[in-house]
Amino acid sequence: MSYDPDNIFTKIIAGEIPSHKVYEDNVCISIMDIMPEAPGHVLVVPKQGSRNLLDADADTLADVIKRVQKIGNAVKKAMNADGILLRQANEEAAGQTVYHLHFHLIPCHKNVSRRDHVSGTTANEELAANCEKIKAAL
Amino acid sequence: MSYDPDNIFTKIIAGEIPSHKVYEDNVCISIMDIMPEAPGHVLVVPKQGSRNLLDADADTLADVIKRVQKIGNAVKKAMNADGILLRQANEEAAGQTVYHLHFHLIPCHKNVSRRDHVSGTTANEELAANCEKIKAAL
Repeated sequence: MSYDPDNIFTKIIAGEIPSHKVYEDNVCISIMDIMPEAPGHVLVVPKQGSRNLLDADADTLADVIKRVQKIGNAVKKAMNADGILLRQANEEAAGQTVYHLHFHLIPCHKNVSRRDHVSGTTANEELAANCEKIKAAL
Repeated sequence: MSYDPDNIFTKIIAGEIPSHKVYEDNVCISIMDIMPEAPGHVLVVPKQGSRNLLDADADTLADVIKRVQKIGNAVKKAMNADGILLRQANEEAAGQTVYHLHFHLIPCHKNVSRRDHVSGTTANEELAANCEKIKAAL
């Protein structure tokens, strides 16, 4: 299984496709998931291309996980969440749908069920509002 | 929320409680999950104590994610899996049950559903056999 740079995340990184961007530096971008399992669900996407975690450059992973931590704390604060679920899928059998490494950060609240991942596109306005909240918490 | 070193993983790291150990170095241990969602389900547990990802030492995280990658590849190979799901829960609302940072690596096969996480203790022999397979793939 090799990496194909023709995927939606390279286009978002290149600015060819719009996104609600929470964070960007030389290592990664973080964007709102447009099919959130809960309000405030974000993705952390390394700029360095790899199919998933299994073939990623190890030093890139080390840089990215620090951003995952930083952004996870911001999401928790911004969404007033009780917890954060980190999830990262490798290959279709594990639920991967875009073949460019990405980490999910999903805010969790007590006694609130998460939605199915692919349950519909959240209104742009809600995504934009949550994006601003998270940026403010970073 | 602070870290309490009185937890099962510090006892396993100290060798006070037995485990099926896949891997160990100065940074982490990796052990078979005794309530696996799929055969070959392992945990990667840093030796440096933190409650979860959110309060972990960033440099420790960087070291640990490299082990997560290495062990994830070994699990995939050993279990002949089609994919690997990485999951890490922060706080009870996200499903965390032991308050010492740990990453789940769960082998996935096409058209095979995962079991519920807490669905029963797998026979020791099965855990031992899968442990040996994964060690051999490392």
